[in-house]
Amino acid sequence: MKTIAVIGSNMVDLISYTDRMPKEGETLEAPSFKMGCGGKGANQAVAAAKMGANVVMVSKVGDDMFADNTIRNFQSYGINTQYVSKMPQTSSGVAPIFVNPSSQNSILIIKGANEFLKPADIDKAESTLVECSLIVLQLEVPLETVYHAIEFGNKHNIPVLLNPAPAVPDLDIEYACRCDFFIPNETELEILVERPVNTVEEVKEAAKVLLNKGLNNVIVTMGSKGALWLSRDGKEVFVEPTKVQAVDTSGAGDAFIGCFSHYYMQTGEVEKALQKASLFAAFSVTEKGTQFSYPSIEQFNEFEQKNTK
Amino acid sequence: MKTIAVIGSNMVDLISYTDRMPKEGETLEAPSFKMGCGGKGANQAVAAAKMGANVVMVSKVGDDMFADNTIRNFQSYGINTQYVSKMPQTSSGVAPIFVNPSSQNSILIIKGANEFLKPADIDKAESTLVECSLIVLQLEVPLETVYHAIEFGNKHNIPVLLNPAPAVPDLDIEYACRCDFFIPNETELEILVERPVNTVEEVKEAAKVLLNKGLNNVIVTMGSKGALWLSRDGKEVFVEPTKVQAVDTSGAGDAFIGCFSHYYMQTGEVEKALQKASLFAAFSVTEKGTQFSYPSIEQFNEFEQKNTK
Repeated sequence: MKTIAVIGSNMVDLISYTDRMPKEGETLEAPSFKMGCGGKGANQAVAAAKMGANVVMVSKVGDDMFADNTIRNFQSYGINTQYVSKMPQTSSGVAPIFVNPSSQNSILIIKGANEFLKPADIDKAESTLVECSLIVLQLEVPLETVYHAIEFGNKHNIPVLLNPAPAVPDLDIEYACRCDFFIPNETELEILVERPVNTVEEVKEAAKVLLNKGLNNVIVTMGSKGALWLSRDGKEVFVEPTKVQAVDTSGAGDAFIGCFSHYYMQTGEVEKALQKASLFAAFSVTEKGTQFSYPSIEQFNEFEQKNTK
Repeated sequence: MKTIAVIGSNMVDLISYTDRMPKEGETLEAPSFKMGCGGKGANQAVAAAKMGANVVMVSKVGDDMFADNTIRNFQSYGINTQYVSKMPQTSSGVAPIFVNPSSQNSILIIKGANEFLKPADIDKAESTLVECSLIVLQLEVPLETVYHAIEFGNKHNIPVLLNPAPAVPDLDIEYACRCDFFIPNETELEILVERPVNTVEEVKEAAKVLLNKGLNNVIVTMGSKGALWLSRDGKEVFVEPTKVQAVDTSGAGDAFIGCFSHYYMQTGEVEKALQKASLFAAFSVTEKGTQFSYPSIEQFNEFEQKNTK
């Protein structure tokens, strides 16, 4: 069976529901708190695994009590954690998140151990990675590691998917164009290409800048406005959004990437995989949480039947 | 050997060091994160245990990964955790803390399982509690539980020490006066007695209001300005502060209470115990963290020799 390698981040979401933020020097009581496994790399790995993918994760945890919990979480979804290693005297990556009564989020990101995922960690996993059929990357780990993973994929003829999130203006566009799939949202595309993307036409123009530099496929995710796939050989496919009542959009982008990775690898059909990914992401925004909000295969099939004509 | 019962809170301190707070809708990267065991009840228990006290803790943890860590932390100091129980489907108490570059703290408190420490939990521990020589209380658990603990102490002739922190304006002053030791800081005293305490004279006047209502001893902690003990039988003792370079004052109040409890129980001498407590709290502000900043007996003895003429 084919395997997806996710090389990237893991975080612990520390979510406080609070009426407001405390001021300097102030101690403020807040009603509730929730903890969950997150991080873009981990979310994408879990989304793919929930749809049935074989996933191997290459990631770094700290040496705190979060570390074992994160590893156990991966394992509960059947994800191979052989290359999830502990970084001594370092905290795991955490994201203290504050949700106000109108569901607006303020997020702190402390990368912790994720900053220590290095090219050498990819080399250590070489014997497993060369057997993989897709490498999935994001930008919550050092850029040198992302570049090394792209080189590794190119060298071994393994397709590489790069989700340039969070937006990192320093991302080397030449490396991005050496990927088979580059999947930004509008903001990330705008920052990378340095031109406005306010209309579908502008999105297309920006995408074409990348295709002209040698990129094979760019897929721009536009949330409730759908997604757009442009390929170097001239395809332009618009994926209709699935209309849902959004409750919590956190982790929806990762849901899309993880689900797309699985179906693309399974079928080789981009358009079909995009439709699945769009549905999967739509489901995830109807529930609270990130990984918690991802459907099981059964839930997904039911949701798909309801939302497909 | 005599035993102290601490009936109260435990929290997990989730400390983010950040340049500023994120705005609504913003995701902001922050440089570092630290996790530690805290909560006023737990800190006081640990402070007493570090000075050599026999301590039994009555407290509630959640059913998350913090729970076992908190219990192990108590045990690492030799604290009896037989009555630290887990609350199903509830998060442990947490304190997301934000430290800015000028070391100013903003603190969120989410009491979680601490809100479920009930009078029945005291009754369950009765056979152990009746053997204790001192009951130590704070206000991070429900007031009904604090009142029940005071009644329990009164009924069984066990001295009760109440540290009215954090300040709770609803605290019933009649219950406070049924304690043997009432140990507020200036702010807490001001809120309870509803009169200003800007000068030592005003502090004394406010304290006397409580003594006139039947309280035996009031000890007002004034941070770097020292502490003041007034008793119903007319004693007025000022405890000189120990001059130190303060690095982090968090947990210093709890350090004072825990150390005082131990030495008072051991010797029965209030003034001597206050001097020890003042030194112990002074040591704690010279180091970062709460429980981390409490000295071992050896460190304390050395510090005492240096700072006593």
